[in-house]
Amino acid sequence: MATGPKREPETVATPSALMAAPGYLARRIYQSYVALWTRVVDPVLTGPQYAVLTAVDSYPGVDQKSLASSVALDRSTMTDVVRRMEDAGLIVRRTALHDGRRKLLYLTEEGAGRLAEVRRLARALDEELLRGYEGAGRDQVMRELTRLAAHWESLLDGR
Amino acid sequence: MATGPKREPETVATPSALMAAPGYLARRIYQSYVALWTRVVDPVLTGPQYAVLTAVDSYPGVDQKSLASSVALDRSTMTDVVRRMEDAGLIVRRTALHDGRRKLLYLTEEGAGRLAEVRRLARALDEELLRGYEGAGRDQVMRELTRLAAHWESLLDGR
Repeated sequence: MATGPKREPETVATPSALMAAPGYLARRIYQSYVALWTRVVDPVLTGPQYAVLTAVDSYPGVDQKSLASSVALDRSTMTDVVRRMEDAGLIVRRTALHDGRRKLLYLTEEGAGRLAEVRRLARALDEELLRGYEGAGRDQVMRELTRLAAHWESLLDGR
Repeated sequence: MATGPKREPETVATPSALMAAPGYLARRIYQSYVALWTRVVDPVLTGPQYAVLTAVDSYPGVDQKSLASSVALDRSTMTDVVRRMEDAGLIVRRTALHDGRRKLLYLTEEGAGRLAEVRRLARALDEELLRGYEGAGRDQVMRELTRLAAHWESLLDGR
């Protein structure tokens, strides 16, 4: 067994085939965002949970099924997120008066408070994420990301 | 219990607070990419696993520690990915001759074959992901994504 000083790993460049792959860049972007979110916004409440709280706040009494696509979650993830936030006391589900299969969502008082707190930190993070993109540059990068998201989602729907 | 025809969920617009959040767009982009990858490239071998195979192919005999940052994986994910691909017979680990703590990675013949196959499908997916971005537009979107990835990663490193 070697007993010398610990050898520092060499630096290895990213293979050019990866640098040219849009999906590799998408992973780097998303995983750094998730790590930043956990560190500076909230270590427990996730981005998707925040999206659901935001949407329920915008549409009090919305039914759970209608909500999924508006926050870009599939049905089963949505069900899971809602259940967790109901357990955490942030959301209540009520059965619709004339249709027992519809579950209508509302924020609790605690949910509204938590949302306000997380929103403040999430917006501060957004500012940092877009630092260096000023004025028209900011609009442009947001437009590019929106276009890319819509294009990739359309590939998925079209299959 | 209601017995009428199944009610179609209403369409609910994405709250504007989310539309303006870069992290929400990053999630939509990454999750649609992952879903496309699973569907058209490989349902078992993941994007990060493909990145590791690609890097080991570029640097035969590279040590595992050096590899992690070149494929944007943290050390523990890297260890997990390498173990899975060793179990699958795609990679072999050999102990370095003069330093028992260094694990050097090589593709097996099967690993090289699998990589060639997955690479062909991954490149076809990349073409679809960038369809509609021609010539300079393609360079521009790749540059924008690269810049954003580097900026977000630097926020993480700087903390």
